[in-house]
This record gives sequence, structure tokens and C-alpha cells, in this order.
Amino acid sequence: MTKPTTSLCHSTADDIVLRGRSLPRELIGKVTFTQLIYFQLTGRDATPAQLAILDACLVTLMEHGLTPSAIATRLTYTSAPEAMQGAVAAGLLGVGSLFVGTTEGCAALLARIVAADDARAEADAIAKSMRRVPGFGHPLHKPVDPRTVALLGLARSQQAYGAHCVALDFLSAAVDAAAGKHLVVNATAAVAALLADAQIPTTILRGIALISRCAGLVGHVLEEQTNPAMQALWEAGEQAVPYKKESP
Amino acid sequence: MTKPTTSLCHSTADDIVLRGRSLPRELIGKVTFTQLIYFQLTGRDATPAQLAILDACLVTLMEHGLTPSAIATRLTYTSAPEAMQGAVAAGLLGVGSLFVGTTEGCAALLARIVAADDARAEADAIAKSMRRVPGFGHPLHKPVDPRTVALLGLARSQQAYGAHCVALDFLSAAVDAAAGKHLVVNATAAVAALLADAQIPTTILRGIALISRCAGLVGHVLEEQTNPAMQALWEAGEQAVPYKKESP
Amino acid sequence: MTKPTTSLCHSTADDIVLRGRSLPRELIGKVTFTQLIYFQLTGRDATPAQLAILDACLVTLMEHGLTPSAIATRLTYTSAPEAMQGAVAAGLLGVGSLFVGTTEGCAALLARIVAADDARAEADAIAKSMRRVPGFGHPLHKPVDPRTVALLGLARSQQAYGAHCVALDFLSAAVDAAAGKHLVVNATAAVAALLADAQIPTTILRGIALISRCAGLVGHVLEEQTNPAMQALWEAGEQAVPYKKESP
Amino acid sequence: MTKPTTSLCHSTADDIVLRGRSLPRELIGKVTFTQLIYFQLTGRDATPAQLAILDACLVTLMEHGLTPSAIATRLTYTSAPEAMQGAVAAGLLGVGSLFVGTTEGCAALLARIVAADDARAEADAIAKSMRRVPGFGHPLHKPVDPRTVALLGLARSQQAYGAHCVALDFLSAAVDAAAGKHLVVNATAAVAALLADAQIPTTILRGIALISRCAGLVGHVLEEQTNPAMQALWEAGEQAVPYKKESP
Repeated sequence: MTKPTTSLCHSTADDIVLRGRSLPRELIGKVTFTQLIYFQLTGRDATPAQLAILDACLVTLMEHGLTPSAIATRLTYTSAPEAMQGAVAAGLLGVGSLFVGTTEGCAALLARIVAADDARAEADAIAKSMRRVPGFGHPLHKPVDPRTVALLGLARSQQAYGAHCVALDFLSAAVDAAAGKHLVVNATAAVAALLADAQIPTTILRGIALISRCAGLVGHVLEEQTNPAMQALWEAGEQAVPYKKESP
Repeated sequence: MTKPTTSLCHSTADDIVLRGRSLPRELIGKVTFTQLIYFQLTGRDATPAQLAILDACLVTLMEHGLTPSAIATRLTYTSAPEAMQGAVAAGLLGVGSLFVGTTEGCAALLARIVAADDARAEADAIAKSMRRVPGFGHPLHKPVDPRTVALLGLARSQQAYGAHCVALDFLSAAVDAAAGKHLVVNATAAVAALLADAQIPTTILRGIALISRCAGLVGHVLEEQTNPAMQALWEAGEQAVPYKKESP
Repeated sequence: MTKPTTSLCHSTADDIVLRGRSLPRELIGKVTFTQLIYFQLTGRDATPAQLAILDACLVTLMEHGLTPSAIATRLTYTSAPEAMQGAVAAGLLGVGSLFVGTTEGCAALLARIVAADDARAEADAIAKSMRRVPGFGHPLHKPVDPRTVALLGLARSQQAYGAHCVALDFLSAAVDAAAGKHLVVNATAAVAALLADAQIPTTILRGIALISRCAGLVGHVLEEQTNPAMQALWEAGEQAVPYKKESP
Repeated sequence: MTKPTTSLCHSTADDIVLRGRSLPRELIGKVTFTQLIYFQLTGRDATPAQLAILDACLVTLMEHGLTPSAIATRLTYTSAPEAMQGAVAAGLLGVGSLFVGTTEGCAALLARIVAADDARAEADAIAKSMRRVPGFGHPLHKPVDPRTVALLGLARSQQAYGAHCVALDFLSAAVDAAAGKHLVVNATAAVAALLADAQIPTTILRGIALISRCAGLVGHVLEEQTNPAMQALWEAGEQAVPYKKESP
């Protein structure tokens, strides 16, 4: 078995090198955090359009209020204020299949459509074969998800409306045809299309959500420090799920 | 620097050895889980009384309903059902200073009293110098914490009412004298006294709570599988902590 | 939608009730930790045989030395000693599909065999259709896994060798026939069979591993407190995975 | 007790509002991720200099190779590939007092110096009273930490060399005088000074490290997907910490 290696980083007495670049001389003060994220994940410099897309997706996913993740973070922070890292980790553990699964599922469908000889036919086949297509529909945002409008608009204005965005158009048309009505294109679908067109590996999509949501959860920790919600969340939870004796 | 070693476990082709004992030949089917926990933490066999004490403390701390930990576990499990370990970990991350700190704080005080030349005087000094003595008082259980009664009763019946239990008596009397009224001896104080008398290292007290609570949280995962509470907990949380625009 | 409820626990001023039983009056000092785990997960009292089985499985899975989980716990504990719960959580997060997946996978196969009209035929069909049957084979323990011997021997001596243990015999014979040689019955397979026969819900198998391993990891925290391995683990890791510049 | 509120986010049918701003209309495609982090944490727009500082600090802390955190993430990912969030959380749990404590400790000292009537005298008093001043010294980077040079240089070029940077100069001079030799100003001290001058609340410093490191750990997950190091890290760990039988 060949020994595994890492190309991410090594340190010498006078330098720290990330994927071949000097952290102090070529990165600190020279690139933004988002540029470094793109470089860390791809080994390439983002083009201006790719950078705008990645920034927009990170901005989109960062903060959604008192989600299950945010509630977990706030309950945990006040329970264990000695360890902010534990509170943030508790929240990130909820960034799983229920919330990110649709992005991942939609990305896989878009990849199939892009790879197909006949993209429209593939989109139709997908829409007809699935009862529920990931990335479509939203309980609150109807008839459009305003984030989707913003994300796809950005892709167009950046001239970054690539094969996966086009595939999403095909899929949306196919989904509507199969359903006999318009289904909202969820922001998760737009994120999937934009990041794929920006050449972020689809295997790391959940990681993009984790980076973004991590920042949102840190904001919740800060709010919890001055405006603690833990006690209220605890009491509300106890009342929402009352004790009921089992029948024997 | 000498190389660190582990004495906990090693494996050979036909054996697995825990602290010098054969797992298949001397432990599986021969000792209970609690006996092995005691052995793992001390390298000694628990006496019958020590075993009864450790079992009782693990039983006491296991399950308290929809605590912040349990809420975090249930929110996380339904958000990420692919990873039960993440849901349990999220709940354990709330087993921190707010909930276990009083056990740890009380244990430290009991150790001081036990080590003092004049135990009663040390207890008095502690009670007078602290505004709030960890392990005393309870918002719901008054005038007695019924778990404390059960735990101290067990220690007596097991003839395991040792120096730390006596120190807790001194401390309780001193706390009441300083307060001018009776303060409930919380179960956390009784756990601290019993485990110290059972010769569990006090530096690992939080670990005992983690083992016990882990089992409780697994029970919540199982209930969440058939009687999911996540959506109700989420909605209750959102309503309990409404959005309020900041004043600029 | 009907409101979810919990039957696990509720508190009153003078009692704490777990699934209908008084914690201070019926559980503390009356049942072992393992008895309460069984009761928490099933709502029933374990028979003596079921109790022996559950204890044996918890004992089997608790401690395996410096596993990836234990390494993660020890690295995390010394990095963040303020939060033992974080170190234990980090280790538990590695109790996932690679290590527990075979138990879960084997349990599913045993359930199929038990449910089949012709159990032997079902076992044969499974063995012929799968390239690798979960729960069989072990890199180190050959030709027998000594834990399996101990676990199945316990089931026999407890007269608890039930339908799932018999199904495991069928499956083992079928696997050997299909492979043309004897494959070790891994302890994970024995655990799957024994717990199913003990009527622990198979959907919570991973949770049993979590409870057990939690206790093992707490032991590693305690050893790390006095015999810290973090620095050595860190340096060994850096040397095992050297930096290699990517080809451009 | 007044009901807690959140000002971070709320959603309506056609909008999502973050601290009073429309996510789709005012944020997506309009601000960078770092700008939104600054806004989330302060409620203010970052000035160009504050933005450059925050970006530089996030870039500085993101990736340091096979740290204990990165090892924990890689071990956990391959153990439980079904849950990337668990692997990232495991790594973040190591972002604790050992690694971030010096930043937090140094920030507290700089705040004292800034608040003092005589800043130089306060710096001297600190240096004389502490055996080891957090933020000074580095095992590898000598005589200068190249990241510190880059960070303080950026602050100067951005005309953002504020009171906390000046306080760091005073503290460095005092530390050298007390030690009788030059001690390296660690990057952690520079980060503390720059973020304080950029008006990031010091109570959330650890959160900045968490956001940054989260991105680095996602990079390790991606590398682990194609160049898995888990097995090598495991074996190296086992060899680095051999089993040693306890003396009885």
C-alpha cells in the first residue's frame, strides 16, 4: 500500500505553505476568505465569476433563524458555556440529510442531465420516475423562492449560467409538466447548479453548507451571550411534547 | 520525553486483553457492564457496595425527560437520521458546567472537608464564604430531593456511608446554618459524595454523567424514531423566541 | 397532526417517573444500570437471560484500545480539556458505518432468515448473492473470533439461543459453502444475533454500541489525564502522512 | 422574566430578512461571505479596512496541516462517511483552550492595556507578573512568526493599526524586557489585536477560529475522499502509544 500524503499544508521555520503557496507572503492580506476556500477545495484560483458564485452560495446558506441547528447550538451553549466549540458542533451535527440532502440529491440529477446525450429527455425521464424531485417545492416560499431568483440572476449577470443551470431549467420544466402545475425551484437546487458550474466538487457540497452554517451558528452563540434563549427554548420544548403514560 | 503508553487494551490473534484481563475468557458473560466500567476506571474490582453505588449513580443520572440535551438529540436525529452517533453526540455536548458543574464543584468541597483537620469547621468556613454552594437547592424538588434520600439510604444500607457522605452531612448543616433555613441537598451532591466514597476518581465525575446520559439519549433516539418530536420542538422554539427588529 | 408525546420521563415536586416507575422509589438502588437501559429501550423488565445478554454485549463493545474513536477522543481532550464532553463526543462521532455497519447489516440479514419460510434456503440465497456478507471475516482473529465463542456460549448457557442465533448458524454454514472455506464469525455478527434474540429493537443497535463505547472513551479520557498521548499521536500522524507538493 | 427575542433572521412568504436586510434583495450577490460574517456579528457594515482585517484573520487560521483537529476529522470521516457533518464537528471540538486559549488570553491582556491610564506601565506590570504571557513564543517560528509580520503589515497598510495593535507593541517590549531576550509575537497575538481593533467582540474570538477552521477541515474531508489517511493515522497512533501492562 502506498503511503498517503497531504498536499494541504506544511510548515517550516519561516514559512507556512498551503497547496504550494506561502501563507504569510502570498495569502494573508492578498486573498479573501472565500478565495482561500475556493483554492483549498480546488487547487485553482477562482475566476471573478466563480468567486461571486461561491460568495453568493455561502451568503445564502448562512442564517435561517431558529432552525433545529440553531436551537441545538443555543441550548448547548448555555448548558456548557465553557466550550463554544461544543455548541457550534452540536448545531453543525444537524446539517444532515434532511436539510442538505435535497441539494446533494438535486446535484446528482443535474449531473445526470448534463452527462446525457439528450438533456431534455433525461430531465423528463427523471421527473416522470420520481414522486418527489429533490430541490423542488417549498412550504413557505411560493410561487417563487426569492433566493433562487437572486442566485440565478447572479449567474446570468456574471455570465456563469453554465450547463448545470441550463439543466436545472430543463428539470424545472419537466417537473412542472409531470406535476401539472408549477413547483417552486428551491434555493437548494439553485445552489447545487451554481456550485457545480463553478467547478466545486459535488462530493463536498455538504461541506459548503457546513462552512456557511458555522458562521451563522457563531452569530447565534453571540446573541445567546447577551440575550439568552435557552431557558425559553427548554420550557417551550417541554410543553410542546408532554409526558404521556404508556398504555401497558 | 518518555513515550506514552496505554494499559487499557491490546489485541492478539486469539485474545483481547483489557487492563490485563482476557475479554473473551474473563469478562464477557462474567462481569456486568457496570463492573467493567468500574474496572476500566480504577483497575480494581468493585466491592459489592461500590458496585451498588456506581449502579445507583448511573441510574440516577440517566434520564430526566426533555432536557436541553434531549431536545438537541431529538432535533439532530430527525435532521440527520443517517447518523445516530451525531444525534447522541449533540446531546452529550450539553452535559457541561451548568448541569454537571455542581456535582464537580460539590465534590471539590467535600474533598476539602475530608482532608481538613477539623471537618466541621471547614464545612462552616465553606458555607460562610460562598454565596451559593454547589449541590444545594433545587427549583422543583422541595423540601427534599427524593433521589438524595434514595442514594444516601442506599449508602447506609450498603454500609458504604463513608467520609464524603459524612462531609456532606456537615456541609448541609453548615449551609442551613449560614442560610438561616433548610436548603435541599440536591441529588448532584449525593452523587458526588457516593462516587468519591466508592473511590471513583473525582477528575472523571463528568465522565460518569456522560456514560449515564448517553444511555438516556439513546432512549430518546428510539422514541424519536416512532414518535418524532422534532417538528413540534422546532415550531415551539421559533414561537418562544420571536424575531424582533433591532433598534438602529 | 397529533401532538407528539414522550413517555420517557416526567418530574413532580416529590418524584421523577421513568416510563411509569418512580426513579427514587423503584429504580435507584433497586435496578442495575443495564436493567434500566433495557427498561428504557423496551418498556419491559429484562429476564435474567436478556439481562446477561445485554450486559455481555455492552462488555464486548466497550474497549478496543487505540481505535480511531479513542485517538480522536484523546487528541480532543488535551486540545480542549475544559470540555470532557467534547472529547467523548468526538470519539463517538466515529462510531459509524465502518465499525457498526456490519452489525446493522448482519442484523438485517438475520431478520430476513428468521422471517423466511425456509430459513436455510434464505441463508444460502444471501450467501450466494453477496460478495461480502457483513459480520463475517476478521483481519486479526482467525480461525475464530474469541468474543464470538464467548457470546454464543453465553447464549447457550442462558438457554437464550434463539431464532436469530440459529439463523446465524445457517448463515455461517452458507457463507462457508459459498466461499469454499471457513470464514470467521465476527463478534459483530454474534452481537447482532444475541441482541435480536433479547428483543432489543434492531433500529437501535448503533445506540447500544454508543452506550458501550462511551464508557470506553471515558476510560481513555482518564488515562489521558495522567498519561497524555496527544503529542505523540499528533507527531505520529504528521509523520505518517507527509506533505507532498501537488504536480501542477 | 422578559421573553427572549432574536434579531438574526425571520422569513416571510417572499423574503428572508437578516438583521433587517433582505437576503435575496440586499445580500445575495451584493456582499461577500466575509462581509456577511461581519454584519452578522456586529450589525454594522465593515469598513474596507475592517473587512480586509477580518478576511486576513480568517485566512490565517484556516489551515495548518495535520493538526489534532484535522487528524480527528480524517479518522472520523472514514469511520463514518455517511455523515460529513460528524467529521467536521469532531475536528472543531478540538478548537479549544490549548489552541485558541492564547488568542483569548492575549485579547484580555490587550484590553487591560488599552483601558489603563498608563498603557506602558500596565504592559510592564503584566509582563512581570506572568510566568508565560499568552500570545508570545512559538516552538517552530523563530525569531519571527511570518504570519505576525503579514498581519501587522496589513494593519499598517490599511491604516488600521489601532489601540490594540499599539498595546501589543507595548506588551511585546515589556515581555522582552522581563525575559531578557526577544520572544516571538505569535500570530495568535496579532489576530487578537487586529480583531479587537476591527471591533469584533472579543467574547466571540473563538467563534472566528471555528468559522475559519471549519473551512480548513472541509478541505481535509475532500482530501480524505480521494487520498484516505485514516488507516495510516490509526496504525501510526497504535504504534506511537504501545500497550504496557500495569504493575499490579
